[in-house]
Amino acid sequence: MRSVSIIGMGTTNFGILEGMSIKAMAARACNRAIMDAGIDRKDIQAFYLGNYIGGILVGQETLAPVVACELGLNKTTACTKVEGACCSAGIALRQGYLLIALGFYDFVLVGGVEKMSSASTAKNTEALAAGMDKDMEGYTGLTFPGYFGLVAQRHMYEYGTTIEQIGMVSVKNRKNAVKNPRARFQKETSLEQVLNSRMITDPLKLFDCCPISDGGAAAVLCPTEIARNFTDKPIEILGSGHGLGMSTSYAMEGPSCTATVFAAKEAFEMAGVKPSNVDVAEIHDCFTIAEIVDSEDIGFFERGKGGPAVEEGLTQVDGKIPINTSGGLLSKGHPVGATGLGQVYEVSRQLKGEHENQVKDAEIGLAMNLGASGLVSTVTILKRS
Amino acid sequence: MRSVSIIGMGTTNFGILEGMSIKAMAARACNRAIMDAGIDRKDIQAFYLGNYIGGILVGQETLAPVVACELGLNKTTACTKVEGACCSAGIALRQGYLLIALGFYDFVLVGGVEKMSSASTAKNTEALAAGMDKDMEGYTGLTFPGYFGLVAQRHMYEYGTTIEQIGMVSVKNRKNAVKNPRARFQKETSLEQVLNSRMITDPLKLFDCCPISDGGAAAVLCPTEIARNFTDKPIEILGSGHGLGMSTSYAMEGPSCTATVFAAKEAFEMAGVKPSNVDVAEIHDCFTIAEIVDSEDIGFFERGKGGPAVEEGLTQVDGKIPINTSGGLLSKGHPVGATGLGQVYEVSRQLKGEHENQVKDAEIGLAMNLGASGLVSTVTILKRS
Repeated sequence: MRSVSIIGMGTTNFGILEGMSIKAMAARACNRAIMDAGIDRKDIQAFYLGNYIGGILVGQETLAPVVACELGLNKTTACTKVEGACCSAGIALRQGYLLIALGFYDFVLVGGVEKMSSASTAKNTEALAAGMDKDMEGYTGLTFPGYFGLVAQRHMYEYGTTIEQIGMVSVKNRKNAVKNPRARFQKETSLEQVLNSRMITDPLKLFDCCPISDGGAAAVLCPTEIARNFTDKPIEILGSGHGLGMSTSYAMEGPSCTATVFAAKEAFEMAGVKPSNVDVAEIHDCFTIAEIVDSEDIGFFERGKGGPAVEEGLTQVDGKIPINTSGGLLSKGHPVGATGLGQVYEVSRQLKGEHENQVKDAEIGLAMNLGASGLVSTVTILKRS
Repeated sequence: MRSVSIIGMGTTNFGILEGMSIKAMAARACNRAIMDAGIDRKDIQAFYLGNYIGGILVGQETLAPVVACELGLNKTTACTKVEGACCSAGIALRQGYLLIALGFYDFVLVGGVEKMSSASTAKNTEALAAGMDKDMEGYTGLTFPGYFGLVAQRHMYEYGTTIEQIGMVSVKNRKNAVKNPRARFQKETSLEQVLNSRMITDPLKLFDCCPISDGGAAAVLCPTEIARNFTDKPIEILGSGHGLGMSTSYAMEGPSCTATVFAAKEAFEMAGVKPSNVDVAEIHDCFTIAEIVDSEDIGFFERGKGGPAVEEGLTQVDGKIPINTSGGLLSKGHPVGATGLGQVYEVSRQLKGEHENQVKDAEIGLAMNLGASGLVSTVTILKRS
């Protein structure tokens, strides 16, 4: 397989993008990525666009060709929307990566987008629950806040993880977001504020939950051997993993998400590196507890040690493994179909040495994107070149 | 690139599958395909599932991992839902084909599914319109029946295609469906009945429109070099094309769908065959006029000659190029996310010599799947081996 690199990235701000259609958001992110790469858009051979609930919330499907027409891509461009709940953009990236690595394409545009703020919180909660198995979880009335509440309960029961440790994820990520102009919330919060915020699903409070947001993110990929024709700072994709979980097992077995365990294993094997080699990571903190479980599933910490790691500051910008230096989904916002590439955008800035919360000498980065009740996960390992 | 073959296929009947969830339909088709292939399901490395409006109509997204759990696939299986309107299953097949052809996977399951009958016709019409560009076509209030009415008007204006020629597509396809137990309608219709049926969008009448239906279809793919370990009748995929159109141009420029023209060109070049080499074809007759335009875009007939070709009987089972010997979408039904693989199922039966309307010595077949207002198209060329 050929080495593949990112030669351009683009993103909208994440937040409430009033007056922009979902097509416009995707097109803005993609246009920025294309301009950042400096390629002729007519050279793009395929376009994979991640989106999760655009059909339900704004009645727009077939987004990849619709956006491609807006972008003025070539008529021979193979355009595909991919969906895997909140993991949709991570999957889009992987399709493009594989087809370049295997020598079929030379230039692929990958993106992700979601427009959520035009719908009510109730409608969003209902739409997001479409990622659950309707025949099983759906009948129980489970929603994602309820689900991650169960995950937190189980983690506390199994490992003695404390409510304070869980809340500290929010404090850390909100602090990181202060300097990030792309983040929706750019304001610090105290542990006391987190713990005293409104209860959502016991033990998760309001500040343990990411905000519903709009946004788009995109990247242009090409073979590494020609990447320097387009940029001085290509970001090499060292490995890409994609795993399958089992609905409900996330909360019930461990708690651990087998999809993430498998995706991380696949990505690390492809990359030839270990978790201890990673200098900076953006991982899926849709809820505070998710970051803790993710950090164990990836292998940054032993099972049950994710909570104490946060408390000891190991995941802060100057810690052993800085996690979510962007502010994470908790502060940046979580436009679900865009998040996977939003994460890659932030990791890439770190590896280029251009991040607002720069990790010194960051060379190897990781982005991890989770979907549904642990049903699907992607892990991408990136390297500055 | 390695040669790739289909070693197993499965389908539900297409029609009104009351009491079956969308997950159950997909799982039934996939289980049949896996059993037909005779492989160990734990050997499946990736699963691509096409679905279009499951989010809007039945509130189920993330279908690929949800169905994979039901099937008991391995935890390392990369599961992705792909969407490109009515072309979703054609795209799913292409992803699997490419990743085996390029040597990344050995066994891939591809499927398509849609559950439509539980929603009203009005709700289905609204849901299907999610495939149109909301910012452009959406504002006009255009729906697909309206859209294909425009296509028909334009074809009649440009080429003198007659309303009788258009209606004859329905007569032919309904006749073909009589012997097909998988079809929703298994009853002949006369040209008089078609022409006298209720007006939907001038000049298209009720019998010019495919019925809203439920269904699932699936296939198991592997490298051709090991295909005979699993079946005596593997079906080789000679070529696969995927093109991008422009919304509204289908009706306005020609009328022709550039997505189909490009997809056919790509598929024929990969396959090293010409339209005249094709012995049997299933092409996208969501409306009668679509079959005529498709047949020209693929290159079976010169521009404007698709109408007379139907009148002359060239597309009948014993004609020059038998088209939709299954009865087509017009008779089989059109569960939109499943149709692409439903077509491949029918072509494969022909190439195995097992079809109810067997075309003598059929060796090379073609399946062509169209999405939205001509925005996306896939063409697959198949060969008995």
